[in-house]
Amino acid sequence: MKIRKAVITAAGPSQRSLPLQTLIDRDGVEKPVLRIIVEEALRAGVEEIAIVVSPGDEIAYARVAGDHAGRLRFVPQSEPLGYGHAVLCARNFVGQDPFLHLVGDHLYISRAEKGCAEQLVEVAEAQACAVSAVQATRENLLPHYGAAGGQRVAGSQDLYRIDTVIEKPTPTEAEQRLVVPGLRAGHYLCFFGMHVLTPTVMDFLGPRVSLSAALAELARREQYLALERANRRYDIGVRYGLLTAQLALALSGRDRDEVLSQLVELLAIA
Amino acid sequence: MKIRKAVITAAGPSQRSLPLQTLIDRDGVEKPVLRIIVEEALRAGVEEIAIVVSPGDEIAYARVAGDHAGRLRFVPQSEPLGYGHAVLCARNFVGQDPFLHLVGDHLYISRAEKGCAEQLVEVAEAQACAVSAVQATRENLLPHYGAAGGQRVAGSQDLYRIDTVIEKPTPTEAEQRLVVPGLRAGHYLCFFGMHVLTPTVMDFLGPRVSLSAALAELARREQYLALERANRRYDIGVRYGLLTAQLALALSGRDRDEVLSQLVELLAIA
Repeated sequence: MKIRKAVITAAGPSQRSLPLQTLIDRDGVEKPVLRIIVEEALRAGVEEIAIVVSPGDEIAYARVAGDHAGRLRFVPQSEPLGYGHAVLCARNFVGQDPFLHLVGDHLYISRAEKGCAEQLVEVAEAQACAVSAVQATRENLLPHYGAAGGQRVAGSQDLYRIDTVIEKPTPTEAEQRLVVPGLRAGHYLCFFGMHVLTPTVMDFLGPRVSLSAALAELARREQYLALERANRRYDIGVRYGLLTAQLALALSGRDRDEVLSQLVELLAIA
Repeated sequence: MKIRKAVITAAGPSQRSLPLQTLIDRDGVEKPVLRIIVEEALRAGVEEIAIVVSPGDEIAYARVAGDHAGRLRFVPQSEPLGYGHAVLCARNFVGQDPFLHLVGDHLYISRAEKGCAEQLVEVAEAQACAVSAVQATRENLLPHYGAAGGQRVAGSQDLYRIDTVIEKPTPTEAEQRLVVPGLRAGHYLCFFGMHVLTPTVMDFLGPRVSLSAALAELARREQYLALERANRRYDIGVRYGLLTAQLALALSGRDRDEVLSQLVELLAIA
């Protein structure tokens, strides 16, 4: 299995201007958010990227994509029918191929040399099945995420076979259906907006159907894995999300010392 | 003299996307940079605002201006003939009226209750003449600014009568022509992109004529004052300028504690 396509969703009403915001990447180069996400996908070996957008945003997005514009296809989501439906909008683009899926309002900072998407794609290609990136997440944060239950793959430290997925589970649901043997007590495997999916998932999506519901169905039909990663994810759609993501990028990149000293100066006068 | 008009220049090739960037203002509300600058002008009592733009940017800028779009007039600068020429593009809009002038790539954080532009407009209206905001600036920073020479107005702490203006003076020029009695040694009065100007200035502007050159001429013809302010100005066009401005806004506003604790958390893991 080779992953050549990616689908980035960026049509949510509250996230439409996010891909146009500018951040300085870890390499010290100023880039629009969209380009940072596109480059994460390209680094994973993807060749073609569909971006699901609100109709009318295509021109502005293409402008900020710069050199990469030629690899992008814009797919309009003509009505705001939710996140799952946004993924479904890319059905024709995906065809019969597996695809990497990223969301347009999160950034990922990998502690390792390899990007987070790159690690995920490697596992998906080796295992020839769908794989979602997950993070062990404290119970009190469950209302924000989709969560997966399953069993650790024998002999692996960070790979799980998923058998259940629930969107924003209650603590009771989580305790009954999502406990994963071997995880720290009170922790669950939560998604963070990065998946490699098989085209089968499109059969289970529809208007107002959550991606988690479709993934639960996928887990019943096919082998479906979760890869646990300590990568830090930054939701840039929340208040001060851009600020936090920019600081995290800067502090983990080549401008660390420069930014730290600016920070100290600012704290001294503020 | 009553100031009812403002001119914001935002047509520089390197600053075109800056007004579209989103920051959280001191009041905790998320706003595009353009709206923060427009609100600075409106708080000073201005009723109509011309924004000088690169042709084609009008639609995107109007979209982010939100409620204020009705008060804006977009004036295209059809060729990139410099900053002074950008101001001149607003000549028809200005007509025979004095006007507030702000630049689209700086933010101002006032320590006082009143905004920086508001303080400047008050002085200009009371003195019925052009007034530029200045900051006492160390000699080594002169290559970045326009600087004014003159005399302190008798009985005032922070008001100067300007008789010379030089754009980016050398240390020698500054020492010969810009020393202001009463300022700390090695410090000069530098502009920071905020002025109230009389329409006379338009007579001295042209393609490739710097605003400083026109202001030097203005100082020869009319009473022209400088108001010294300790307001902090943030150039958002430089590397990490947006980050620094966002941190400064947050640390001086109502979200100070929230952001400080996020910062501590981030520094702990970064």
